[in-house]
Formats: sequence, structure tokens, C-alpha cells
Amino acid sequence: MECTAKELAEYIGAKIEGDGSLKISGCASPASAKAGEVVFIEAGRNAEATAKLAEAAAKSAARCVILPPGTELAGKTLLRAANPRLAFAKALAWLHPASRIAQGVHATAIVARSARLAEGVGVGPYAVIEEEAEIGEGSQIGAHAFVGRGARLGADCRIYPRATLYAGVRIGARVVVHSGAVVGADGFGFVPTDDGYVKFPQIGFVEIGDDVEIGANTTIDRGALDATRIARGVKIDNLVQIGHNVEVGEHTVVAAQAGIAGSCTVGRKVILTGQTGLSGHCTLEDGVILAPQSGVPEGKTWHAGVVLFGSPARPLDKAKRILAVYGHLPELVDRVRKLEQAAAEKAS
Amino acid sequence: MECTAKELAEYIGAKIEGDGSLKISGCASPASAKAGEVVFIEAGRNAEATAKLAEAAAKSAARCVILPPGTELAGKTLLRAANPRLAFAKALAWLHPASRIAQGVHATAIVARSARLAEGVGVGPYAVIEEEAEIGEGSQIGAHAFVGRGARLGADCRIYPRATLYAGVRIGARVVVHSGAVVGADGFGFVPTDDGYVKFPQIGFVEIGDDVEIGANTTIDRGALDATRIARGVKIDNLVQIGHNVEVGEHTVVAAQAGIAGSCTVGRKVILTGQTGLSGHCTLEDGVILAPQSGVPEGKTWHAGVVLFGSPARPLDKAKRILAVYGHLPELVDRVRKLEQAAAEKAS
Amino acid sequence: MECTAKELAEYIGAKIEGDGSLKISGCASPASAKAGEVVFIEAGRNAEATAKLAEAAAKSAARCVILPPGTELAGKTLLRAANPRLAFAKALAWLHPASRIAQGVHATAIVARSARLAEGVGVGPYAVIEEEAEIGEGSQIGAHAFVGRGARLGADCRIYPRATLYAGVRIGARVVVHSGAVVGADGFGFVPTDDGYVKFPQIGFVEIGDDVEIGANTTIDRGALDATRIARGVKIDNLVQIGHNVEVGEHTVVAAQAGIAGSCTVGRKVILTGQTGLSGHCTLEDGVILAPQSGVPEGKTWHAGVVLFGSPARPLDKAKRILAVYGHLPELVDRVRKLEQAAAEKAS
Repeated sequence: MECTAKELAEYIGAKIEGDGSLKISGCASPASAKAGEVVFIEAGRNAEATAKLAEAAAKSAARCVILPPGTELAGKTLLRAANPRLAFAKALAWLHPASRIAQGVHATAIVARSARLAEGVGVGPYAVIEEEAEIGEGSQIGAHAFVGRGARLGADCRIYPRATLYAGVRIGARVVVHSGAVVGADGFGFVPTDDGYVKFPQIGFVEIGDDVEIGANTTIDRGALDATRIARGVKIDNLVQIGHNVEVGEHTVVAAQAGIAGSCTVGRKVILTGQTGLSGHCTLEDGVILAPQSGVPEGKTWHAGVVLFGSPARPLDKAKRILAVYGHLPELVDRVRKLEQAAAEKAS
Repeated sequence: MECTAKELAEYIGAKIEGDGSLKISGCASPASAKAGEVVFIEAGRNAEATAKLAEAAAKSAARCVILPPGTELAGKTLLRAANPRLAFAKALAWLHPASRIAQGVHATAIVARSARLAEGVGVGPYAVIEEEAEIGEGSQIGAHAFVGRGARLGADCRIYPRATLYAGVRIGARVVVHSGAVVGADGFGFVPTDDGYVKFPQIGFVEIGDDVEIGANTTIDRGALDATRIARGVKIDNLVQIGHNVEVGEHTVVAAQAGIAGSCTVGRKVILTGQTGLSGHCTLEDGVILAPQSGVPEGKTWHAGVVLFGSPARPLDKAKRILAVYGHLPELVDRVRKLEQAAAEKAS
Repeated sequence: MECTAKELAEYIGAKIEGDGSLKISGCASPASAKAGEVVFIEAGRNAEATAKLAEAAAKSAARCVILPPGTELAGKTLLRAANPRLAFAKALAWLHPASRIAQGVHATAIVARSARLAEGVGVGPYAVIEEEAEIGEGSQIGAHAFVGRGARLGADCRIYPRATLYAGVRIGARVVVHSGAVVGADGFGFVPTDDGYVKFPQIGFVEIGDDVEIGANTTIDRGALDATRIARGVKIDNLVQIGHNVEVGEHTVVAAQAGIAGSCTVGRKVILTGQTGLSGHCTLEDGVILAPQSGVPEGKTWHAGVVLFGSPARPLDKAKRILAVYGHLPELVDRVRKLEQAAAEKAS
């Protein structure tokens, strides 16, 4: 798709400076952009960083730049936006619309007679949709995807090839599920006995809100008796594990390889960074941030807005003060040794 | 399926108090139970916790409660069991039998002519079963599942849609493999040379005992020359990695995202909690427990029954004493500083 | 396949001592070898370990042993090699050639009319190859594998059943992709706003060099605007996460469950061991080694050749000195307490 700089400015809500008739064919990074492509820069962490970004944009072949107010850049058509990254994301979505995962229902797709497909649903080759599943309007189900019995999907979902939705999962609108993700497998519930473990059958389900994105090869288990719930707007990266009966609040972010054990409650706008872990029955209130590889012990509650670091996790300011000492433990031992020597000398 | 409270009591081995003719239609949690459903409570970690659980059950719409001896609950039909969780698990399995993954051999399943399917085997749509594979009586192979050449499965296995069993893996009876799990991929074996790495071909196999459960997207590599062995009764959660030539003993539990590197030996009834890791060639004797995110360094052996914490892991009691000091390192530095000041004052 | 000891010696470049006419039917470990199989031993970490390995080989039924110069072993045909493990790997590849993943194009494979398959390409049952994809000579695409629109694969690749290559990924020659791996899913890019996160469309691609191996259920995301690049010879284990815009240099090794967050630059011959993590925008120069479970904080650069340990990671020698003190923190507190008591007694 193609537009003019002026049309793009209008679409993304930017103020244009320069040649509005410039033809824009797509978005790119400054390093790889061609003349007809638009790039963006945003404020760096300091003036020097911002200047470096501006210089890269200036040197770029791109003739059109989305940038924040106040930044100067000669010889380009400028699109001023308060949030250039957001404006650029809109430009990307407009100029590079995601290609369809599936168009129509492929002849090899197996759709149970009792399954209901709304208008405009696409189902790829070899996809399997079981009895009484419901797929909302315009949703696309990729090749080899599996939608179990009675699963329900809202409108405009993108289920990439080879995603698995077990029986009975409930998925909102505009949900993206990447390849290899498994939603609704049994939670890890067993009862220890003298003769080993007896399975605690997992008869619950999974409820995923609108606008959730689920990364490749991520696993979200069904509840034991009730639901595992992921609220709307939650973004989950690849290879994440979410255990049974977990509740994740709106607009929370879960980065790659993080794990949330069973029965945890995670609030709204929480950020779990990469490789973090919550043991069972934890509570993270709204806005908590867990630094990479940090872990929260079983049953622990952390109050709203705290930033945590370490395993076991502590508030970041405290953790930093501890780490500062930790990094000089050998020197601390030397200081104690000197004090001991001085005391011994005095005593003798 | 439906029964009376009396029939249920008999089936799960509980002592009934109250109306034995009560119709029971299923199991549920106290929060979501309907009148005809049975719930359970068990002893909490203290009297207060137990009372809270009992209260939830009392308020529940459920008219039938499985509970331990000694707990009182008015107005319900009571099913007394020494281990209420176990009794409830039995009730779940009886009243909510797992639905079949595959019924008969689907017309689109590709089963090699030399593969042998015992009686009652189900194979889902688009499943592929290669030459000389053997599937035991009553086992169910889900849609898109792949069973490689010469793989052997025992009776009554549940292979969920889209699980992969590489050629030659040997699987016992009643084994559950969840969606996306990969059993028998090449171990990670390469020989470093000046020109990079040369693959050490992995010609071994995998042997999985009876009653093992393997979680979604878990990977268990084949041995380099011999076997990777998972003994009977082992329960493995999602996204777990088990390297080549590992041996895992009976009734061991491996929680989500744990990893066991090549050539480790893990004993019986070991518990590896979430995100734990064993480096190569470790030995954990029977009953070892590894706390979340803990790690055991290369080649280390830990003796039977020890509880370990940290990375590198230490016995829990020692680790706790260390952590207690660690949490107050800034204060420790202050104390040393004060001692130094006092010494300096004296010296001057 | 079968050969004589003499032929094998020639093929692997070893010097033979003993009966060159010995028939060799395969490779095995000393413990499980039959008479006609060849085993290998290499120098252990010390003389005792080497002697133990030699003893195992001596007791083995195998009549032919690959071993380093200097080691003595009576009653066997000996194949002397400077690098016995490398020589054995060559023997394995020769005597146990990997079986074909797919022979010819299966009738059920769906290959788009515009896709180009070079000579000798095998495509398994139910594999899907989309428009304009290109598959190089002799490459094998397993059952249920998915090759997206415009993806390009070099010659002699082995794409195991149920691997997913998203649209547009570019893969070199002799690349191995294990089951469940997902190459080219969207990077994790979202723009925070007051109303939640807005997706930053990921329009980049993935470039995988020659001779790369990608483990089961590993995920490698496409770049946001440009490429995620894995250079030739890189070996990646199972369940690894590689974020968008990451660059990994030649002959680097990434062990299981390691994670590399977005925009990291990893040099040549780096070793990321199991469960390690790099936060975003890190740089590891050539030859860096990251010990198990270690983590590198956001934006950090580590210079060539350093061995790192811990989370946050420190150079190993420093980390070890710190850990030595850490392990005795309770004793250190006791020493400080004694000094305080002595000072208090003096003061009183």
C-alpha cells in the first residue's frame, strides 16, 4: 500500500513540515530505508543519544521522518508526533497490514458439523476444529491449528499455524496466538500417595480476554476446577508458562520464559520480565515490576507499584544496596581481618 | 455421569454422614459449585486456615462435602476421608471421565502399513504413524500427532494433538503426552574443532516408564548412544528440558521450565520445582528437593533427602542462615565501619 | 552399513593397530557394545579418570576401540586418533547415516504452485509450503512442517516434523530444525499507552546461516524492521528464546532454556550455557562464556573471552571470591559480633 506524506500525517495524527506530496511506500529503520520509506526517531535517554538517533535519520535515504517536537532535521519531510514510536506503529499497521493467515476454509480443513464459523472466518490447510467450537467473525485459523471441542473464539483473532487450543477454552476478540502455543492443557495437579502420584483431573477451563497476544510455544494451563484467566490487553511473549488457576490482570506484560505457578494472582499493568518466576499462590498487586530472572517465593504478596529484584525478590532499592555490598564481600572480609589483627595485637 | 452420595462414598472409600440418596452430578470448587455437585476441604496449615476452608464449604451451594475426620460442617451430606484431596481426585476421575482424544482411526490419519495398532486404538485426523511403530491397546493418538518409525507405545496412552514422538522412542502404559511435547529429538552433542562444531550423531533412544505424564511443549532428548530414561510414575510439567542420557527415577516430579542437562542421574521421589536447573553429570539421590530457580553445578552429587536452595544450591538450613545475613549486608558494613572508626579514634 | 576396521580407520583418519579385517557394524558405548561395534575413549580430566575409561573399554564386548595416542589397551583393534571424540563422531555419521525425514513429495503435502522445490527435495505428509517459498536441493521437510510464504531454505536442510518457519525467513544450507521450533514469529514489540499496549508490527525477517542447528521447541523471532541474524555454525539447543533484532556470531553455542532478549549482539564462539539470560541490548564479544543460570543486565557489554557467573553476571574469578565469602556469611557476622563485644568490654 502507498500514500503521500500528507495522508500519512493525517492517518497517524502528526503535524507535517515539508513536502506533503512525497510518496510513501512503507516503513523502515534508518539503516535500511529506501527513499520512499518513512523512518522514526524518538528522544534518547539523554541529549547525546537523541543527537545520535537524529544523525542516523539524517544520513538515512528515507525522505520522511516521524519525530518528536523540538528535534531538528534538515532536508526531510517531517511528521511531528508527541509519541513518535506510537505514530510509527500506526504507520506500520497501515502501510504493512498483516497478511492473512487463512483465506476461506481450506478444502483439507476438518471442521466438525456442530462447529459454528461466523462470517469471514479463514481456516488453513489441515486445521482441525472440533465439535461445538465457535469461531467469531473474521478470525483466522492457521494451518495445522487445533481448536478443541467447545472452544470459543471472538472476532478477528489470529491463530497462527500449529497453535493448539484445547477443548473448552474461551478466547476474546482480536487475540493473537502464535505458532506452537498450547492453551488449555491440564494443570499440573497430582496427589502424593505412598504408591506415587495420583492425577487430580483438571476439569477447569481457560478464559482469555480481548486483545491478548500469546507468544510462540507458550503454555497456559486450564484451571483445576475453575478458570485460568488472562484479562484483556495482556501481552505474553514466547515460552512462557502459566499454571492452573492463575489470574492475570489487564494490560500486564509477561516476557519470554517467565513462569507463573498455579493459583497466583497478578494485577493490572504488572511487568514480568524475562525468565522471572512466581511460585504458587503468590499475589502481585497492580503495577509491580519484576526484574529479569527474579523469583517470588510461594504464597508471597507484593504491594502495588513495587519494583523487585533477585531470587528471592526484594524491593529494588534495598536489593541494590545489598548487591553493592555483595560485590565487595572479599574486601569486607579483609576489613574484618584487619580489625581482628589490630585487636589481637592490642590484647597481646 | 451421575450417582448418589452413597454410591460416591463407596467408590472413593469414604464414610458417609447424612443423606445418602442425594444425587451427585459432578465435582466443583466451593465458589462455583451448584447444589448437585460435591466439593472437598482438607486440613489447612493451621486451625484458622482450616476454619476458613470449612466456612467456604459451608457457604457453598454444594450439598455434599468430602472432608477429613474431625472437621464439623452443618447442613451438608458429609463424606469422611482420611485424605480428602485423594478422595476428591477419585471422585473427579469417576464423575468427569476424560473425554476421548480420538475414536477409531480417522480417515485422514496416515498409518504405515508396517505399523501395528492394537485393539481399541484411536488415531485422530492428520496424525502420522510411521513404519513399524507399535501402539498398545486402547491408546489414543491425537490430531496432528507424529509417531516416528519404530516407536513403541504401551496400552491406554493419551497422546494429545500435536505431540511428537521421534523414531524409536519406547513408551510405557498409561502415559500422557501433552500437546507440543517432543520426545526423542537429538541430544545436544557437538565436538568443537578449529572450524566450528561437528555434530556427534545421536543414535540413542528414549525410554519412558508406565504412568508418566509429560507436559505441553516439554522436550526429552534421545540418548547419544544409549537411552534417556524416565522411570514409571514420573510427572513432568510444561516446558521442561531433559537432556540426553539423563536417568530420572520413579515418582519424581519435575515442575515447569526446569531443565536437566545431559548425563544427570536423578533418583526416586525427587522434586525439581519450577525453573530449577541441573548442569551436566549431576547426581541427585532419592528424595532430594530443589527449591524454585535453584541450580546444581556440573558434576555435583547431592545425598538422599536433602532440601536445596540457591544457585549454586546449598542445603536449605544453611542457605537460609546465609540469606538472613545477606538481607542485612548494608547494616553489616555499617557495623564494620563503626568498629573501624572506634579503632581509628583509639589509635589517634 | 558395514565396513572393516581398516576402512573405518582410513575414513576417520586414524592409525590402526591390530586386525584390520575386523568387521565393524556400528558404533556404541562401552557398556552396550556388541563384538562388531566400535567404541571410543578419550583422555579424562586426570590419569585416574582416563584409566577408568580405558578399563570400561577393555571390559567392553567391542573388539575395536578409537583412542588417543599413548593409551594402552590389550586385546583390541585400536584406532589411534588425536581427537578420538571427533573421530568417533565421523564414524557415527558414516556407519549410522541419519535416516531420511521425507522421501519425495508426499501426496498429502500442500505445496503452493509458486513455491520452488529444487531437485531431491523431500516433503512429508501434511506438510504445507506456501507461495513463493524456495527449498534447496536435497532438503527434507518433515510431516506437518510449515514453510511460510516466501521463506527460502538452502540445500540439504533437515526440517523435522512439525517445525514452523514463518513467512519470509531465510535459511542457509545444511540447517537442522527440530520438531516444534518456531522461526520467525513476531518479536515482542508493543508501545505502552494510557489505554494499554499498541502492537508495533514486526515486519522484519530472520536470517539463519549455514550449518546451524535449532533445537526442539526453540523460538527465534523475526526482527521488528530488519533482521534477526544467526550466523553460520551456531548450535542452539531446545526451548531457547531469541528475541527480535538479535545478532548471534559464528560458531556460538546456546544451551537449553537460554534466552537472548531483543537487540542483543552476541559474538563468535560465545557459549551461553543452560538457563542463562541476556536482557535487551546487551553485547557479548567473541568467546565470552556465561555460566549456567547467569544473567546479563540490560545494555551491558562484556569484553572478549571473559567467563561470567551469576545474576547479575561477574567475571568468574571475582564471582568465585565473592561466593567463597557468601558461603560463610554467618561466620563473618559472628566475627563482627565478637569484635563488637570486645570493643564494648573495653569501653565499659
